[in-house]
Parts: sequence; C-alpha cells; structure tokens
Amino acid sequence: MAQKPSIPKGTRDFNPQEVSKRNYIFNVIKSQFELFGFQPIETPSFENSSTLMGKYGEEGDRLIFKILNSGDYLSKVDENLYASKDSNKMTSSISEKALRYDLTVPFARYVVQHQNEIDFPFKRYQIQPVWRADRPQKGRFREFYQCDADVVGSDSLWQEVEFVQLYDAVFTALGLKDVTIKINNRKILSGIAEVIGAQDKLIDFTVALDKLDKIGEEKVKTEMLDNGIPQSGIDKLQPLFNLKGDFGSQIKELKSILNASEEGKKGIEELEFINHGIESLSLQTASLQLDVTLARGLNYYTGAIYEVSAPEGVKMGSIGGGGRYDNLTEIFGKPNTSGIGISFGLDRIYLVLEELGLFPETVLDTTKVLFINFGNAEAMASMKAIKQLRGYGVRAELYPDHKKTIKQFNYANKRNIPFVVLLGESEMNSNTFTLKNMKTGDQNSLTFDEMLKTLQ
Amino acid sequence: MAQKPSIPKGTRDFNPQEVSKRNYIFNVIKSQFELFGFQPIETPSFENSSTLMGKYGEEGDRLIFKILNSGDYLSKVDENLYASKDSNKMTSSISEKALRYDLTVPFARYVVQHQNEIDFPFKRYQIQPVWRADRPQKGRFREFYQCDADVVGSDSLWQEVEFVQLYDAVFTALGLKDVTIKINNRKILSGIAEVIGAQDKLIDFTVALDKLDKIGEEKVKTEMLDNGIPQSGIDKLQPLFNLKGDFGSQIKELKSILNASEEGKKGIEELEFINHGIESLSLQTASLQLDVTLARGLNYYTGAIYEVSAPEGVKMGSIGGGGRYDNLTEIFGKPNTSGIGISFGLDRIYLVLEELGLFPETVLDTTKVLFINFGNAEAMASMKAIKQLRGYGVRAELYPDHKKTIKQFNYANKRNIPFVVLLGESEMNSNTFTLKNMKTGDQNSLTFDEMLKTLQ
Repeated sequence: MAQKPSIPKGTRDFNPQEVSKRNYIFNVIKSQFELFGFQPIETPSFENSSTLMGKYGEEGDRLIFKILNSGDYLSKVDENLYASKDSNKMTSSISEKALRYDLTVPFARYVVQHQNEIDFPFKRYQIQPVWRADRPQKGRFREFYQCDADVVGSDSLWQEVEFVQLYDAVFTALGLKDVTIKINNRKILSGIAEVIGAQDKLIDFTVALDKLDKIGEEKVKTEMLDNGIPQSGIDKLQPLFNLKGDFGSQIKELKSILNASEEGKKGIEELEFINHGIESLSLQTASLQLDVTLARGLNYYTGAIYEVSAPEGVKMGSIGGGGRYDNLTEIFGKPNTSGIGISFGLDRIYLVLEELGLFPETVLDTTKVLFINFGNAEAMASMKAIKQLRGYGVRAELYPDHKKTIKQFNYANKRNIPFVVLLGESEMNSNTFTLKNMKTGDQNSLTFDEMLKTLQ
Repeated sequence: MAQKPSIPKGTRDFNPQEVSKRNYIFNVIKSQFELFGFQPIETPSFENSSTLMGKYGEEGDRLIFKILNSGDYLSKVDENLYASKDSNKMTSSISEKALRYDLTVPFARYVVQHQNEIDFPFKRYQIQPVWRADRPQKGRFREFYQCDADVVGSDSLWQEVEFVQLYDAVFTALGLKDVTIKINNRKILSGIAEVIGAQDKLIDFTVALDKLDKIGEEKVKTEMLDNGIPQSGIDKLQPLFNLKGDFGSQIKELKSILNASEEGKKGIEELEFINHGIESLSLQTASLQLDVTLARGLNYYTGAIYEVSAPEGVKMGSIGGGGRYDNLTEIFGKPNTSGIGISFGLDRIYLVLEELGLFPETVLDTTKVLFINFGNAEAMASMKAIKQLRGYGVRAELYPDHKKTIKQFNYANKRNIPFVVLLGESEMNSNTFTLKNMKTGDQNSLTFDEMLKTLQ
C-alpha cells in the first residue's frame, strides 16, 4: 500500500516560482550586504545541545528541536532516570545535538571558536534556515530562513548609522519604498525605569509600554499599577505618552524626562549621534523614526534597538529588526566584545512584495525556447542548435519525446516558455528555423543568427 | 564558567573564503542547470519519518538522523515497550520526523504530492544540504550539500544524451578539463548475469565485478566462485575481462557476449544511441567512456548509469554520478513514471579545484576600498563618499573606530582590501581623496570621479 505523501506541519515545499522569488530577495540582500563590506559565513545546521540550551530562556529551550542520538541510545540512560519516565530530564541523556534556533548564538560560538583567525571588527552576514518547534500558524513556520548581518569588535556608533543605511539600501533595492525604521535605545528604557523608580521592574514596565499602540494609554497605566509601579512614577511618565513630532522634538521631550538619569542621557546622546548622521547622509526611500515604546529582545540588547515596519497600508508585523549587544560572546568565554546586528524577515518581505506586486517580471524567466521534437533525425539537428544557443547563454531545451505537436505546444504554454522552434524536414533542408512567438503567435522562418538575435 | 565552544563531529563551519568558493561552484552549476531548462525546487530539511524510513536499506535507516518529539514525549510511549528499553523499537514512538538523507526520496515525495500542479516532463534541480549519521572521516561529513538535476515523466533517451552534455558543460565552465564520464547500463549487467546463469546473484556478481580495478581479474573470479557463480559462467565472462579500445569496439565485444539476452541487447541499443548522440554533438572538454564494471545504486537504477571521475593524476573518488530509474515515485503511489538524474559532489569538486588551482581569483574579492577613520568630522565626510561609491556598485566601508592609522592599515592588509582612502582635513579642504594602492604602495591625490574610475 503506497503512502500518501505529506510533509511535517509548519514546513513547506517551494515550487520553482517560489524558489526564484525567494532567491531574488536573497540575492538583493546579499549584494547590499557585500556592498557594505559584510562577508558570508555558514555554520552547521545542528550544534551541540550545550551550545544552544539555556540561551533563549525556558520557552526557547522548549522550542529547540533535539536530535536523537544514534545507535542504542537507551543503553546509556541511567536506570533511575529511566524509571522516572521524565521527558525533560531524559532529553539530555538521549540527545546531544539540536537544530539551530537562530543565527545569533551560533555566530557568537563561531566568533569565540575562531577568534584567532578573525580580523576584528568582524563584519559577517549569514543567510541560513533555522528551526523552531513553535505551534505553526499563518506566517509562522517551523523551518524558516534568517538573513543576518552583524559586526563584532567595535562599539563605534558609526555602525548604528551604517545599519540604518543598510536597511534603507536593501528595501530601496527591492523597490519597497516608505518603510519605517523605528529606533530606540535600551539605555533610554533603563533611564525611564530609573526615573520612575522601577529599575527592578524594567521588564514589566517595558512589556506594558510596548502595548501603548494596541491598548491605549489608560490600560497601559493600569497594567503598570498592577505590576507594582507606583502612581507617582506613572505620573512622571505623562510626557512620554504625549511624545509627538519629529526626531528632534521627541529628543527634546525625552531630555527633560531623563534629566536625572546618567544612563538615560547616554542613550539620548547615542540617538542624537545616529540621527545627526542619518540627516547628514539622508536616506533614499526609508524614514527613521524614534519610538520609545520599542523594546524587542530586552534581555539581550544593550544599546540601539531597531525594528522595521512595512509601508503604511500593508498589514504586516515587523519585516526586520536588530540592535546593539555588548555581552553576546561572553557565554562562550570572550567578554567585552561589543556587537551590533540586524536581521531581515524573508517570509514577511516575500508577502509584502507579493501584495504590492514588486517582484520584477524577469524573476520568473525560465527556459527561453523549446524545440519541438519531430523524431530522431530532427531531434539531433535540434540538439545541435540547442547546444549552440546555450553557448550564447540562451536557455534552450528539446521536448524529449516525439509526441503530438499540440501536446508539445501545450507544454511550452504551461511552462510559460515564450518561444518555440519548429525544425522539421523542410527547415533542415533549407538550413532555417521556424521560430514561433508564443505570446503574439507570430511565426518566422529565420537563419540561426537571426533566431539567436531574437532570443538574446 | 564559560563553555569551550565546539561543533558536533562531522560538521563544519565555513569562513568567508570557503563560503565564497563554495558559492562559486554552486553558481556555475545553477547557471548550467538553468541553461539546460531545469527549474529549482526546495523541500523541508526534515520529513515525516515514514517518508524516509525503509527507502535506503537497513544501513540507511540507521544513518538517518531522527528528531525527538516535542513536549512530554515519553508520556505517549506504551508501558510494555518502555519496559523493554529497546532503542530500535522505541524510536518510532518518540520521534516522528527525520532529517533528509538525500534529495532523491524527498523529490519523489514532492512529485507525487504535487503531481496535479506539475507539467511533465518535469525538469527540476535542487541544491540543499543532507544529513547522515555516518562515522566522520576525511572527506566524509555528517552534513553536506547535494546538487541534483532530474527529469521525470519521460523515458526518452535524449535525456541520457542531455545529462552527458550537462556534465561536460558544468565541468567545462568550472575550468576542470579532461574529466571522464563513465557510463554503463543496468540492463547490460542484468544481461551478463543472465548469460552466465547468475540472474539470482546479480548483486554478488556486480559487487565482485566492481572490484576489477582494485583486486584484479583472478581475485574477482575467486570471489564469484565463492559466491556460487558456476565456473562455466565465469568462463563465459572471459571476453569481459579483456574489453579494450574505444566505445565502438567495446560495444562490438559486448554484442557477442550478450547475444542470447534480450535485456542485454536492449542495454546495448541504449548505449549505442547515447554514444551516437554524443559523437554527433561532441563534448567540449570531457570524454565519455564505457565501463561495464560500473554498478552504482544497483537496486535503484534501471537503465543508464553514470559516474564522473576527476582528471587523471588527481586522486579523488567520483565527483558525480547518476542514472535512469523507472520506479522511484511508485513508493508514494505514482507508478510507471520514468526518471533520470545526476548529482554533483560539491565537497570533492571543491578539493579538486583547490588542488589544481582552478578557483578564479575574483572569487575572493571582498571590500574594494577602506576609508581610514580620522575622527568624527572626517568619518562623516567619508560616509558621504562611501554612500556614493556604493551607489556605483563599489564595495566600500569605513573603519569604524578612530584608532591609530597603522592599525587601520593592518586591518586592510589582513582582509586583503586592495585600496585605502585617506580623507583628512587637508583633503576635505581641497575636496580630494588620497587613494593608496595596497599592493603597489602607490598613493595619489584624486577627485571623486578619478577615484571612482580607479575603483570600478
């Protein structure tokens, strides 16, 4: 009995059109990464479990795909442990490897492991799949690509400026205008928490503030109160809820709020440097916007935080994000190495380009010309012409079987092949090629050179 | 205590130079695949275990990496099964997914699952990693890429001719001349077995014959005798051991040996068609050679069998292989679908190109010009010029920190960046750029346009 074929939930097959569109996005991103001086590395799909576990919080640990040890893996399990039948405790005894969960931790591992071969500052990019045992839902997959660019080994704020430019360059090159690059600084969030007397509640405070857009000012305040942030502190936040205007005006407001916090003032200084750089250099199609409610990856970032949103009118979560981290490589034994990086969300960018019709038509170009198969003698003559055409870079193929001509034409049509060549006995005798344009229906008798000219 | 970072045995990190060289090979192969009319697909890294298990023999099943189920996976295990502590039996209860072992079975699954969306004959290529829990050794990895091109849905022998041409085209494009494309036909092996009365011992017979090069005629004969092939049959094989000369002469000898086997004669007919096609079309740099001892993937291929060996003098196993299979999609419920495909061995091709010095120098091109950082005012002016240069496609970057000039020059040297720009106060005042060629040491004061011209 044959199996009915299927794939695991949360994973995808990609057909030729989808692969071509995805590769188009990858190639644009790669070109820009390289223009900006980033170099590619690749790391293994699975890492030692000890490299990954404990790096993404409890929830993250749960979502990491573990690989079962080979051979008689149960024979090495301790009897008492086995008797407990405790899945959690058992895992480390029967699994030593795990699929990577993101590209950041493997990158940190790479930097420390190869530190003696690397010239710092090290600007690397990495475009590889990652795996998460998340509940699959619309737009969320168990296997998906991450496209990351990072620099480690420099705390220069010019990098912050560079990454804003890089976002602008990539989305401009993709034809995706008017994206918003939102920026914030972890130091500002810390500063605010300090000022309102909630240093120890930084996460609760930020989680609540992050919901401002969704639930509104009053509910945010209620949530903060519920989390033990004092009313007096919340009162001090009032100017934050009224932040308005351009980058400069918002900075001015922030300065008055954060006057009492050294860390907050440092964050403002950094933001001003970045904003000044971007104003002087100017962006091509994107805009930079200060968003003090932005708080992604809080237990991870230490300085600038980025998040990119699609142009207004396109309903889509963030299509990119990143920030500055100062301690990433410390877990693997290399402290005091500042880094900053950004990521592009391939799947969402794909959906946005699709929705806005921004994929260039040429992305789907495949075979340019199909030679109709009229039997072995004609096929041999066709193969000779095909070989020549390929030598000139023309994608050409022979229909492999001598079937009814209409069937062969249908094949060309379905595959969107724009030209068909009829090379029958009479053409062979006159050394010509009948070239049919499948869109217009035009049909011409041509020499090889004339045919080549049309196809090139 | 920090972990000492490492990766699982049999896996690899790839540094920027290695990634660039690997991508060069991938890109050459992809271009040729597309010139020949193949279209890319991609399948998930892991499949349902039921898709993979039982397709590669017992040894293959053992080498497939299994993924542990998420959550409390032990709670669903039957009590009696658990009590047995039998790893083999337990696996299917605690693991439902597995990493793909090759690209062929996932391709067969894809074809059957998507048969209603596919226009046959379907010419697909696929370049993705596969995983095998093999004992790692020199040149054998647990994660490696396969590059496959297949056609399903046509039994036309023109495909056989096409694939020989495709091998020739790829290796020619890689600058790897004089590879040998060895060809055989499964039907010829069956025919020989039939003639010598060893139909039921086809595999033993072929395994022994396959060793001819290594252990010599006498030992091959002894092994056959040991495996129960009668002396009378082995005597009939004598002409096979003496096969010499070009394709045509060997075919002539084979005809006399296989005169009594219909299947053998069919195999000869196919070989003659392919050889005639290739002789008429001619190859660019490769040569086609008949090798009746070639027997790869016997329980799988049904017609032509290919194997490519590196040029003489390069010690390396086969760098490519493939063949015709008639029943691949049957396991998933689609019988009578003939297919043929070939594969390129990326890792070995890499080693051969390295050994022969065939990687183009441009493969390692990275950043073209580094701007020295003399402080914030100069850096800002540099960033403006860098932005312009990138707009013209020049890979340019600023050294992020204002450090000693010598340190910045060292960085350029180590990273092999060929040009450095000094943009100090005097250059800013005169609106010029001091461009230093890092190889020659030449240093010139240039306008932006002059600098651009040198860098382009």
